[in-house]
Amino acid sequence: MSAANSEMRVVIAGAAGRMGRTLIHAVAATKGFVLAGAVEARGSTAIGRDAGELAGLGANGVKVTSDVATALSAADGLIEFTIPAATLALAELTAAAGKVHIIGTTGHSAEEEAVIATAANRATIVKSGNMSLGVNLLVALTKRVAKTLGDDYDIEIVEMHHNKKIDAPSGTALMLGRAAAAGRGIDLAQRSVRGRDGVTGPRCQGDIGFASLRGGTVVGEHSAIFAGPAERVELTHRAEDRMIFARGALHAALWARDKRPGLYSMADVLGLRDI
Amino acid sequence: MSAANSEMRVVIAGAAGRMGRTLIHAVAATKGFVLAGAVEARGSTAIGRDAGELAGLGANGVKVTSDVATALSAADGLIEFTIPAATLALAELTAAAGKVHIIGTTGHSAEEEAVIATAANRATIVKSGNMSLGVNLLVALTKRVAKTLGDDYDIEIVEMHHNKKIDAPSGTALMLGRAAAAGRGIDLAQRSVRGRDGVTGPRCQGDIGFASLRGGTVVGEHSAIFAGPAERVELTHRAEDRMIFARGALHAALWARDKRPGLYSMADVLGLRDI
Amino acid sequence: MSAANSEMRVVIAGAAGRMGRTLIHAVAATKGFVLAGAVEARGSTAIGRDAGELAGLGANGVKVTSDVATALSAADGLIEFTIPAATLALAELTAAAGKVHIIGTTGHSAEEEAVIATAANRATIVKSGNMSLGVNLLVALTKRVAKTLGDDYDIEIVEMHHNKKIDAPSGTALMLGRAAAAGRGIDLAQRSVRGRDGVTGPRCQGDIGFASLRGGTVVGEHSAIFAGPAERVELTHRAEDRMIFARGALHAALWARDKRPGLYSMADVLGLRDI
Amino acid sequence: MSAANSEMRVVIAGAAGRMGRTLIHAVAATKGFVLAGAVEARGSTAIGRDAGELAGLGANGVKVTSDVATALSAADGLIEFTIPAATLALAELTAAAGKVHIIGTTGHSAEEEAVIATAANRATIVKSGNMSLGVNLLVALTKRVAKTLGDDYDIEIVEMHHNKKIDAPSGTALMLGRAAAAGRGIDLAQRSVRGRDGVTGPRCQGDIGFASLRGGTVVGEHSAIFAGPAERVELTHRAEDRMIFARGALHAALWARDKRPGLYSMADVLGLRDI
Repeated sequence: MSAANSEMRVVIAGAAGRMGRTLIHAVAATKGFVLAGAVEARGSTAIGRDAGELAGLGANGVKVTSDVATALSAADGLIEFTIPAATLALAELTAAAGKVHIIGTTGHSAEEEAVIATAANRATIVKSGNMSLGVNLLVALTKRVAKTLGDDYDIEIVEMHHNKKIDAPSGTALMLGRAAAAGRGIDLAQRSVRGRDGVTGPRCQGDIGFASLRGGTVVGEHSAIFAGPAERVELTHRAEDRMIFARGALHAALWARDKRPGLYSMADVLGLRDI
Repeated sequence: MSAANSEMRVVIAGAAGRMGRTLIHAVAATKGFVLAGAVEARGSTAIGRDAGELAGLGANGVKVTSDVATALSAADGLIEFTIPAATLALAELTAAAGKVHIIGTTGHSAEEEAVIATAANRATIVKSGNMSLGVNLLVALTKRVAKTLGDDYDIEIVEMHHNKKIDAPSGTALMLGRAAAAGRGIDLAQRSVRGRDGVTGPRCQGDIGFASLRGGTVVGEHSAIFAGPAERVELTHRAEDRMIFARGALHAALWARDKRPGLYSMADVLGLRDI
Repeated sequence: MSAANSEMRVVIAGAAGRMGRTLIHAVAATKGFVLAGAVEARGSTAIGRDAGELAGLGANGVKVTSDVATALSAADGLIEFTIPAATLALAELTAAAGKVHIIGTTGHSAEEEAVIATAANRATIVKSGNMSLGVNLLVALTKRVAKTLGDDYDIEIVEMHHNKKIDAPSGTALMLGRAAAAGRGIDLAQRSVRGRDGVTGPRCQGDIGFASLRGGTVVGEHSAIFAGPAERVELTHRAEDRMIFARGALHAALWARDKRPGLYSMADVLGLRDI
Repeated sequence: MSAANSEMRVVIAGAAGRMGRTLIHAVAATKGFVLAGAVEARGSTAIGRDAGELAGLGANGVKVTSDVATALSAADGLIEFTIPAATLALAELTAAAGKVHIIGTTGHSAEEEAVIATAANRATIVKSGNMSLGVNLLVALTKRVAKTLGDDYDIEIVEMHHNKKIDAPSGTALMLGRAAAAGRGIDLAQRSVRGRDGVTGPRCQGDIGFASLRGGTVVGEHSAIFAGPAERVELTHRAEDRMIFARGALHAALWARDKRPGLYSMADVLGLRDI
């Protein structure tokens, strides 16, 4: 029986955190996946508890452990939305075991990125700043549209998030801006316009504008607007809940299962490298 | 035969300007209206020219004149989108003649407003910062929604205009913000948040946010967004061309025709005072 | 101590159903409310269970009962999203006790409506086809805009819901259509256009169009579009989850607390009768 | 001096029609283009008139003629939005002269398409059902997104046009639907759902839905919505006026100028073949 026909066995790291519990839900809800293990940092109060109960699903018999190596030995891969230092420790183990490693964690330094790249010689790593399929698609499309249309099409990135968010623009809005700049072959840092207010003068051709709305409980909406002479193209993503990040991570894990070791992005997973 | 059954005869002031020519088009295109006169400032090169030709409509036999009083004597009223000083001179004449005076001109000082108010003892004046029916409706609705929903509904005003616009937010966005603040009984100046950028902290309850997009040839779009717990109400206006201002002015003129002298707003014209 | 200063004590009927459990969540999450009772039909397997556990909140000590009268005796009112027959039985008891009764249940026949109206001689009843604040606001605004703008503004109602929904247009879209027709003083049945397809000819002035989109997991979005000469006014509501119906019901209960017996709508609760 | 550095000289066919006059405007407004000729059918009352005056631009010295061959001899190419029979006659002449031929005309039969394909052995022809850059981009993106996302993402195509439009869905909406179907490798005819109304049952996975709104003076708006589990991707195009078709035609002409004879589409012009 080929591996491709069997279920994929995954370990969830950071199992007691918000994304960890969301991932445990997603694994339970998705055909083709089995929860092979749930790990937490040594000393966590979650150690020894039932992972299903932690996630509010009812007991599933998987006890939370800090022994990642043993959990991995019976699994195809590991998924984590944790903290940068944890990613490095986990990558050492997934590399040693030659397994899939899906990294939803963000905020790694250049040095940490280098360690991850080295681990990717033996682990099959997929890493992205945003694991949602839709957002990654939007980023790729934005790059392509920016490349196709001339700079008589003004680019504006707009996002809306809930009223608890403390920074602006969102990380995803900046991903969209960088993609637009890459498509045009310009440097975003030099052409970014944020927080228009007062007497601004006419818009400079080639600038990329950002606007951030905050309110209510909006999970996250992003638009890239290309406003040209007498027409507009708008690319929009609307997220309904955080489950999309877990779902994207599972999608990436399945894609990575039969790939050679290496460091991949969601653009690889979605086949959008060429766009 | 009652006046209400006959056509309304209007004089267009500032006839050679962009809005003047748009008004001449609107009068020609609207049943129930007759162009009774077209006036320009003494010394204008347009004096003596055919108003229809000026507007690109073909000759209509109405010669542009600087003699407002004579033009008014054969008309029911006057419409103007000119400059503050011109408004005062025209108001003296519409008051003397006891006629309708529609003022689309903006930028009057407090002293000038007082002169206009005095003229309204004898003229029937309708004055608004934006003559579009849709925008005035949006302003009234925004006030009412702000009054109805508590401040667990965050208010954001977003607008988009063409890339030649030199200031932000737009005057209409500020009208919407003032209406929202009035609905809530707060002072906009103290609760206005513009140009969110960087680490802003969580949104302060009760604030009114503004965001301005610029691009392409967009005539003007405005939204008032009320984002609350798990739901949003969005009120949007989209303008396709400047003709809406002319059309609103004609609508106001017709409404004013049988009204007593006084100073009215578009809220009066639209019956939205009570909203 | 006046009643207005104390917490409001509510009984949730249909406690084991999806909306019942959502209401139990909402009561727990909302300051000023106490869960005074949880009732289910005689014979339900939920009888005797802990209402908090049923709702996935953890035990709260309120046992589900079928004895509504006793539960009501220690409460200020009752909230229910159940079935028409249950509403009648419950209304007999809220009327006898002179309590608040919030009816989110739909589908009552004319005869059943008459029974409810009679109960309202002694109970303070709020009844609505949709308990969301935002939706009720949208309905009121739609009526007003339809009344204000002439029929050179074409009205289109668009809605989007998840791919499991089995009928179109949604009940709320029809509420919007009826509100628009009422604002214009026309009969919706005679002017409704649904499912445009093929060679339709030009749009008939005065018609009200409906379009229904289905896809994904969209909870519910509705727009009333007024498209006139060179401008559009769009009124939109976006629901994120069903919690808005529970929240609206609590809002109605609090409003009803100090009102005289009678049959009220969400328009009364929101002070939108006059709009 | 290379041809690429000189201005492109174009003949406009159907010069007295609405799109012809729009094209004459576009040529006058666009750097790099010269109006080399304006042609109309033999017997047209426009023959001999000044093309600039016809277009409302003021005289430009180009007299409308029915002698296409002579006009072409001093030009680089010809642009036309006419009628199918005229396209064939014009293609004979552009092929004989080995010139660029931009065809915005629609409604050709299979036989007529074959004649055009033959002409393309000697003429450099660009032909599209919609000449707007933005619309063609939207079509290409729709195909790619449909290919990338699985059929747990439901596809809905929505469009809005002015109240004079007599058919639904619009031709462009159908282009989008065909592109989505091609991306998924399915047959649109078998999976198209139009005019949802009444008890429809749940949405069938893989269907492509269409909805058409009509109202006011909307030039044309199209969205392709991909609604999946807890997220949506929306691709939208908004047209402000018909000038976008003329502008797209000029863009195509410039692109075609140094291309070998052949039959090209706007996807070729925009470099979107590979998407």
